[in-house]
Amino acid sequence: MGVVISMKEGTDRQASVKPLVEHTKADMGRVNQLILSKAGSDVEMIPEVANHLISSGGKRLRPMLTLAAATLYGYEGDGHIRLATSVEFMHTATLLHDDVVDESDLRRGKSTARTIWGNQASVLVGDFLLGQAFRMMVETGSMDALDVLSTAAAVIAEGEVLQLSVAKNMETTEDDYLAVIRAKTAALFSAACEVGPIIAGKDAPERSAMRSYGVNLGLAFQLIDDVLDYAGSAKDLGKNVGDDFREGKITLPVVLAYRRGTDDERAFWRQSIEGGANDDDALKKAIELINKHDCLRDTVARAEHYASIARDALAPAPDTPEKNAMLEVIAFCLTRAN
Amino acid sequence: MGVVISMKEGTDRQASVKPLVEHTKADMGRVNQLILSKAGSDVEMIPEVANHLISSGGKRLRPMLTLAAATLYGYEGDGHIRLATSVEFMHTATLLHDDVVDESDLRRGKSTARTIWGNQASVLVGDFLLGQAFRMMVETGSMDALDVLSTAAAVIAEGEVLQLSVAKNMETTEDDYLAVIRAKTAALFSAACEVGPIIAGKDAPERSAMRSYGVNLGLAFQLIDDVLDYAGSAKDLGKNVGDDFREGKITLPVVLAYRRGTDDERAFWRQSIEGGANDDDALKKAIELINKHDCLRDTVARAEHYASIARDALAPAPDTPEKNAMLEVIAFCLTRAN
Repeated sequence: MGVVISMKEGTDRQASVKPLVEHTKADMGRVNQLILSKAGSDVEMIPEVANHLISSGGKRLRPMLTLAAATLYGYEGDGHIRLATSVEFMHTATLLHDDVVDESDLRRGKSTARTIWGNQASVLVGDFLLGQAFRMMVETGSMDALDVLSTAAAVIAEGEVLQLSVAKNMETTEDDYLAVIRAKTAALFSAACEVGPIIAGKDAPERSAMRSYGVNLGLAFQLIDDVLDYAGSAKDLGKNVGDDFREGKITLPVVLAYRRGTDDERAFWRQSIEGGANDDDALKKAIELINKHDCLRDTVARAEHYASIARDALAPAPDTPEKNAMLEVIAFCLTRAN
Repeated sequence: MGVVISMKEGTDRQASVKPLVEHTKADMGRVNQLILSKAGSDVEMIPEVANHLISSGGKRLRPMLTLAAATLYGYEGDGHIRLATSVEFMHTATLLHDDVVDESDLRRGKSTARTIWGNQASVLVGDFLLGQAFRMMVETGSMDALDVLSTAAAVIAEGEVLQLSVAKNMETTEDDYLAVIRAKTAALFSAACEVGPIIAGKDAPERSAMRSYGVNLGLAFQLIDDVLDYAGSAKDLGKNVGDDFREGKITLPVVLAYRRGTDDERAFWRQSIEGGANDDDALKKAIELINKHDCLRDTVARAEHYASIARDALAPAPDTPEKNAMLEVIAFCLTRAN
């Protein structure tokens, strides 16, 4: 599957998340300790379920962004540790609930919590982590950070419900779909970044810059995720190629292929996505149609558009190692294989 | 089923929630408006699901308690409206998630949201309401109220997970069970009451008094709920008698009947609760055994114990109509039929 590789030619092939990892390493050590401590409970099942997901090798992009955004603006306290942990807990809670809602069996190459402990535990441990996230935010004492993160929590849930209503509906437009991922994915990236300047005591321009960087990075991140599901390798992804297709999920490559397709092709998409005719042969045909209409290439192009906005949003920020790391994360999101 | 009736003889048969309703009427009008407005969303399904539950005739005891507790301590602002609405949203979110976790089809005599819109929508709309609850708390600007309510959110979820682990386990002790309902039910009553003196600017003694009143009222409320499931009438309850039994739920009457039972009786309980042999004949036998060992009477006696503590907790509070209304709510919780 050379499609994604060929998309990468114009961008930095070496782009990596490593500089971000390096520059947040010491702080992330403290975040990881706080994660373990705050996922603890006398109720045995809670740390079991929480640690299953927490230790399953996510990139922890979001808490690293919170840490980097705080340091970028000169923050020297330790409230950013709690905020970063809150952000990761919000993300983990969302994943736990998502897997229940999507009835997913595999995440990052491991069985989902719901297949091991059941839907019940996944719903409730998600609720617990969300409660703990808010407690930690309260401990930092920043009303503005609380405002941004609690608003994100409501927006994320709203986006997930919106996704239910566009699910399996082939008439979904690109704008409809963007509204979903803006709420579902980009809102948390945005909030994770914005609380950095907030806790550093910065004002509206810095907050706007980080909000814009975060939301556009999040959109680019999600669009590449959509591409990888039709073009990645199962080994790199930690999930199967075609998972989105088999779950009848509308993603941008599918939206484009449907709108650009012939009448026959549209009938195929309706049967597959709306009608559930999504076996391996159907997946093969879906990939053919997506490639026929250059839908992966153009989804990457859309992602590059948002990546450019993120880059410009970051431009006025102080020239620090964190800024460079955050710039490289944009390129990484475009060229990543998982 | 005269058992509960006979339990009521020693208490005030006329006890009612009406004085609380009367004294919070004007404020509850504003709460109800805020509920409708904050359950609103451009995503159509959200107000549909939320209003289904919100308009289904719950007593709204918790938000009324928040309002009364604030007024009791002389609060004259309008932050208590937002806090009361937050409390009701937290409760509604819990119910939505509970019905998914318990796979319930009926609540307050109506189909549950999950049977109409599915588990997915119930999980996600619950998350949305929780996010909205936190946003409203942030708007009040009280860190102490945020602390109390976010802690309650984590404790409630912890209690629900704990309940999963005691579920269908007949060796559950009364103390195990109390730990569950203390977290699952009493924590929100406690938080709902404690934010009253908090927003009124009161100190530790007033907060402790309301916390103690709330937690003990919550325990009494839940224990009577347990009794009603084996002794109420389906018409009054809005759910079927024996629902707890059919779901294999451990409640105090069952804990007591098991511990007081003969070897044969214990085998029956294990088959019914752990083994799922819970048809109508089994329910009939369960009720017989519960009555044989006076388990409803003694569960009511336990509830009266907590009710007494709640009464004493309230004693030092200023003599206002709200105090009297809150005292009568204790008696109402003991004598209610639904």
